Amino acid sequence: MFDIVLSGCDVLLRQGGRFCVEDGCDIAVTGERITAIEKSGHIGREAAREWIDVSGRLAIPGLINCHAHVPMVLFRGLAEDVGIESWFNDFIWPLESNLEPEDVYWGMLLGLAEMIQSGVTTVADHYFFCDYTAQAVQEAGTRANITWAVFGHEGEAKLNRTTDFVRKWQGAAGGRIATWLGPHAPYTCDDAFLSLCAQRARELGVGIHIHCSETHEQRELSLQQHGVTPPEVLRRTGVLDVPTILAHGIGITSADITMLAQHDVAVAQCAKTYLKLGMGTARVDEFRAAGLKVGVGTDGVVSSNTLDVLEQMRILALDHKQSAHDSTRMPIQQLLDMAFVGGAATMRMPEIGELAPGKFADITLLRQDGAHVFPRYDATANLVYSHRAGDVETVLCNGRVLLRDGRLTTIDLARVRAEVTQRLARLNRRAHDKRLATYPT
Amino acid sequence: MFDIVLSGCDVLLRQGGRFCVEDGCDIAVTGERITAIEKSGHIGREAAREWIDVSGRLAIPGLINCHAHVPMVLFRGLAEDVGIESWFNDFIWPLESNLEPEDVYWGMLLGLAEMIQSGVTTVADHYFFCDYTAQAVQEAGTRANITWAVFGHEGEAKLNRTTDFVRKWQGAAGGRIATWLGPHAPYTCDDAFLSLCAQRARELGVGIHIHCSETHEQRELSLQQHGVTPPEVLRRTGVLDVPTILAHGIGITSADITMLAQHDVAVAQCAKTYLKLGMGTARVDEFRAAGLKVGVGTDGVVSSNTLDVLEQMRILALDHKQSAHDSTRMPIQQLLDMAFVGGAATMRMPEIGELAPGKFADITLLRQDGAHVFPRYDATANLVYSHRAGDVETVLCNGRVLLRDGRLTTIDLARVRAEVTQRLARLNRRAHDKRLATYPT
Repeated sequence: MFDIVLSGCDVLLRQGGRFCVEDGCDIAVTGERITAIEKSGHIGREAAREWIDVSGRLAIPGLINCHAHVPMVLFRGLAEDVGIESWFNDFIWPLESNLEPEDVYWGMLLGLAEMIQSGVTTVADHYFFCDYTAQAVQEAGTRANITWAVFGHEGEAKLNRTTDFVRKWQGAAGGRIATWLGPHAPYTCDDAFLSLCAQRARELGVGIHIHCSETHEQRELSLQQHGVTPPEVLRRTGVLDVPTILAHGIGITSADITMLAQHDVAVAQCAKTYLKLGMGTARVDEFRAAGLKVGVGTDGVVSSNTLDVLEQMRILALDHKQSAHDSTRMPIQQLLDMAFVGGAATMRMPEIGELAPGKFADITLLRQDGAHVFPRYDATANLVYSHRAGDVETVLCNGRVLLRDGRLTTIDLARVRAEVTQRLARLNRRAHDKRLATYPT
Repeated sequence: MFDIVLSGCDVLLRQGGRFCVEDGCDIAVTGERITAIEKSGHIGREAAREWIDVSGRLAIPGLINCHAHVPMVLFRGLAEDVGIESWFNDFIWPLESNLEPEDVYWGMLLGLAEMIQSGVTTVADHYFFCDYTAQAVQEAGTRANITWAVFGHEGEAKLNRTTDFVRKWQGAAGGRIATWLGPHAPYTCDDAFLSLCAQRARELGVGIHIHCSETHEQRELSLQQHGVTPPEVLRRTGVLDVPTILAHGIGITSADITMLAQHDVAVAQCAKTYLKLGMGTARVDEFRAAGLKVGVGTDGVVSSNTLDVLEQMRILALDHKQSAHDSTRMPIQQLLDMAFVGGAATMRMPEIGELAPGKFADITLLRQDGAHVFPRYDATANLVYSHRAGDVETVLCNGRVLLRDGRLTTIDLARVRAEVTQRLARLNRRAHDKRLATYPT
């Protein structure tokens, strides 16, 4: 007896290393896992507790957001068209100094609602007051790797708070929540603090999610100040001795890549942020050729404006073609491999990112009846270049329906909007002498 | 007595040269025009024949697509990840040689359906068998400038066919249709043919819509073959003596711009195509500083995959920030000015592109209840960077409702899909010895 059968959908499969779409299938779910994918007609209605007709929908693995600061949705649209130093020092860090723990809870729920509506079921989140973000993930029903960001100047006491969080929430929500450590970046944490974080991560048996060589300018500043690149700072402080997610890495050099390939490193790519802030393009093809894991993320919405992984995938491919002046770069198959296989590898969650029996039932179903996805000569091209998050209709995570016919089942969005609305006036104040940290230039 | 009142919406207005959003307004429509925009409460229900509650929706001017080959939707997804020469010679021109007139009619209806669903009410279309595209526009209820593309090797007889079309359809559909001439490009039309086209355009009193200096490579080839740049070819053949839309213009130089500024020139920008084909970035800021009109287009979907102007606007801004390595470039206000003011100027339709009494009632209403556009500190930032075409709910053109609550009122999409479906097998054949033209390298 299956718990749920999603009937009649076209399914994005990976066969012989290539993505293809098999039309007219039923996906059976038992508990938290996919237990069968068959051509429609093979599974009888009597074999399912719940039969959901999703005829004509495209089923893809739940999208994976490998780097985000989800509760920053609270500040959406507050820092437009500004330079990167001003973005940090005049906007982000003053704004974030207004945050109280409960703000983060409501912001996380709002961002999780946006992600579910956009077909995103898993996120690597890097933020503050993480007991509250974890609580929101538990309630929303999604999957997450959560790290509590910490700056070097906050010292060991604040690091202890984040290690307490790691212990408390590791494996919570029936295994949907993983917890890592999150020192902010080499430019906001000195070597001693990074070494301490690495030691703690080893003791806890967890990984580290950290910003690294976000821009070429950060690399040059590191070379000036430390004589080495940011990845080398991470190596010598022991950070690379544990599994890592390095966010952005636009300043990562070919020599860095050779070194990073000796470690268990993933790099998260958030192209919309890079274009919006004019940051440049990372050496993604080299990362992948060297065996680094690469996944797609959204970053926080104060730079990327949405938590829409599908849009990020598209912009990533477009940016690579444009920057290489070569339309054959980052072909559809490679992009899908990065988003799904690379995404699961980046999260160190081998049971997500693929629709196949035995995998977790993290499933996003998109409508295909809009004129913008017809004709459908190539369903993978449509997915990458024509579909939009607005096509997402039904979403499951861990075998549970979180979005049904466009309606959220676990989050009361009207309540969330009301709670956020009453906080806005306090949250959008900016006092320039009150900020979390200072961006160096 | 108003014909229609759109009640309770937030309206994108232009005041003192800046775009802003005025919340809680009623827009009154009489015949084909906007006749009042007032704060809600001032217009009584009894003053309207039809009262449409659009509370909480964002009203923007109908989006303007300044360069497209709409019926190419028939080939969506057939030429992915290929180089530009192969794109033309192995895909587009062989595929287009399969077209029969009625294919174009159904393709145009399909593309118009997509545009209406995406909030686009006006298009400058450059394609073939234009009696059929014009017929589709007449039925769909949208606004269009239509040009029948012609290659130099087709000669005067085929040019005559396009001039006949210009005469027959000029001002048709109650003025919604304008017709221009459409020689394809300087690299597919020799000087004598371009001169003949220019002469015909002067005689007819119409403009010319033409591809020009699409890439740096095209400019260099023109310099090798003719000793001058493509814009200079257009000048010396008299093309620039009539109003023009130049498509793309990535290869346009600073010297070209100085010359072009002496003529009535508009340049259409289709950024998604440029990134997808790795073509580079046009000097848009210089175009605008020199007084050239600049509008946003989608190009055909075999390069851009959608006819989504909102997406093109976003990618255009992102590409300019990225290519200039400067996040302050192409700020939101400038982008909106280009899309709406520049779009209307490019189309030479001064009565579109703005929501104000006296303007044509071309109005797109977007839902704002998705989590991805909340909070709304800055509605213009949301429009440019967070909204997606899937938020479009209701669309009017020329005072007529073309999309109501997401349902097309003038196009039977199921019928269009059925008609297109039965043509696909014939349309997607590619015989390499059978093509419309040859791309030079």
